[in-house]
Amino acid sequence: MNEYIDSTLLRSDATIEDITKLCEDAMKYHFATVCVNPYYVPLAKELLEDSTVEVCTVIGFPLGASTTNVKVYEAVDALEAGADEIDMVINIGALKDKEYEYVKKEIEQVRNVLDGKVLKVIIETCCLTKEEIIKATEICNETFVNFIKTSTGFGSRGASLEDIKIINEHKNEVLEVKASGGIKTRKDAEEFLKLGVTRIGTSKAIDLIDGCHCDDECQCGDNCECGDDCHCGEHCHCHEEE
Amino acid sequence: MNEYIDSTLLRSDATIEDITKLCEDAMKYHFATVCVNPYYVPLAKELLEDSTVEVCTVIGFPLGASTTNVKVYEAVDALEAGADEIDMVINIGALKDKEYEYVKKEIEQVRNVLDGKVLKVIIETCCLTKEEIIKATEICNETFVNFIKTSTGFGSRGASLEDIKIINEHKNEVLEVKASGGIKTRKDAEEFLKLGVTRIGTSKAIDLIDGCHCDDECQCGDNCECGDDCHCGEHCHCHEEE
Repeated sequence: MNEYIDSTLLRSDATIEDITKLCEDAMKYHFATVCVNPYYVPLAKELLEDSTVEVCTVIGFPLGASTTNVKVYEAVDALEAGADEIDMVINIGALKDKEYEYVKKEIEQVRNVLDGKVLKVIIETCCLTKEEIIKATEICNETFVNFIKTSTGFGSRGASLEDIKIINEHKNEVLEVKASGGIKTRKDAEEFLKLGVTRIGTSKAIDLIDGCHCDDECQCGDNCECGDDCHCGEHCHCHEEE
Repeated sequence: MNEYIDSTLLRSDATIEDITKLCEDAMKYHFATVCVNPYYVPLAKELLEDSTVEVCTVIGFPLGASTTNVKVYEAVDALEAGADEIDMVINIGALKDKEYEYVKKEIEQVRNVLDGKVLKVIIETCCLTKEEIIKATEICNETFVNFIKTSTGFGSRGASLEDIKIINEHKNEVLEVKASGGIKTRKDAEEFLKLGVTRIGTSKAIDLIDGCHCDDECQCGDNCECGDDCHCGEHCHCHEEE
């Protein structure tokens, strides 16, 4: 599981201490990447220097409504600071206005400055109709990006299994899928992985890995009795006597 | 009231039609500005060409955690596209880490490329302690920006009267205050204006101006009977027989 995880901390009030812990945990757990805001790329790069954990950052984030010029500049700036992977948000308004060439060219322009580094394109499924998800998937096929990514984590909802099924039906064989937003439990993550997702973005990476895994029994409801650190959100007690 | 309003539409899924309506309404109501994402600055500029309504945009928005290089580039890009006013988000993490010189220099670097255009500095009060609000206010004093602005509208809460009181106690005489985030009614706006605020950022500008103004009587609760467009969120009926 761990090697599929982008351990993510994009809160606007994250501090050096928070990012340091994120990176230390990522090394301990051998996550794929840490995903941090651009300001923290140099710090993350330094902290992860002797590890296999890559540094991922975001551009045009989370609204996607900056200009193409700015997104390209952000990508170059992030690369120079040491980023290994770039998660960019598409221009959602332009997609809705059927300005497909604009959306496509913007992605291509960012891709072209990345020098082969991994590019993930965030389509923010919560804002899109099924038809728009299909169109966004086709654009990701056509632009040869590495990943299509469902969500910023700042929208009205995160990834859904239904989103992934729609994407899977329309993506080509080489496009990978990153599910992100609202993925808090191992069980959630496993369901996405079963659908062929190859990266999970989560701000709850440690809970997801270390939290109790008794969902099946406890059903995460009022009767949950599976330990204080249960990721079901209820206060529970079953590990206290262990 | 109208001349104090930045009529704001920063949703990631805003379309050309949405921005067009925003601009048409702003001209009709003589608002101070429309505040739109950078992608829409050229459209807003064109639509507002023959009006007194200015075009405001946002940079480092809403997380504030982009690099200084990117914020400066965004400012230049927005100015070239026709922006009249720039609302930038401070680096909140750096403020929390007491990297005051960094926060200050970043603001100065953006200010220095603005060629005298209005600069508002968003401090995102929902993320800050009282001491941090005071420090941010002092930095705004020292950097000679035009406005200190409370909130992005994307945080856990918007402006509070308490925020404004803290800012007022520590700002110098020339620094103006923009209250933003969660301001939906005329009554809300009036309370901020009474505290000396000179700009109100709201995504509900028309409701705020045109909504019924019977809050005092109806208290906006279950017994509200003040018209279908009442901004209290309840369905009410008192104007139906007028």
